[in-house]
Amino acid sequence: MRRVTVLIRLKETVDDAQGRVVCQALKDLGFSAVAQVRIGKVIDLWLEDADDLEQTKKMVAQMCQVLLANPVIEEFEVWQEEGSQR
Amino acid sequence: MRRVTVLIRLKETVDDAQGRVVCQALKDLGFSAVAQVRIGKVIDLWLEDADDLEQTKKMVAQMCQVLLANPVIEEFEVWQEEGSQR
Repeated sequence: MRRVTVLIRLKETVDDAQGRVVCQALKDLGFSAVAQVRIGKVIDLWLEDADDLEQTKKMVAQMCQVLLANPVIEEFEVWQEEGSQR
Repeated sequence: MRRVTVLIRLKETVDDAQGRVVCQALKDLGFSAVAQVRIGKVIDLWLEDADDLEQTKKMVAQMCQVLLANPVIEEFEVWQEEGSQR
């Protein structure tokens, strides 16, 4: 069993209203150093028969294209965490 | 300006209904290798005057405790991406 982690973020050009609200809330709580906040998703996938890492990454990228991400406004990053055999 | 990334995930013992639905949807789309899916949040923070990395990580952990995460059901991981000066 291989664990793969996908980070899905809004594209830089897309306004993140949720992030703006959280940024203001942090400031209101006294964290004045915060300049910007952007919020995305982390998706952990456990895959069977995924010995070929390159093949697996391609498959996960395809999952992002068809279901996990919205390619119009989001970008994704696929990585494999070493030694995770949960 | 320093960029810090926080990953917020449900604790292992907490059932992830959203992840289960996405797992089934991926299977229905033909991705039969998917055994489990868990979904969390990735939060990117841009911080001013954050030269001291240890101090910054402590501050971000505090932000997680008071606002970003729910420590009862979620766990968080703070990391700093090198060379990000956006």
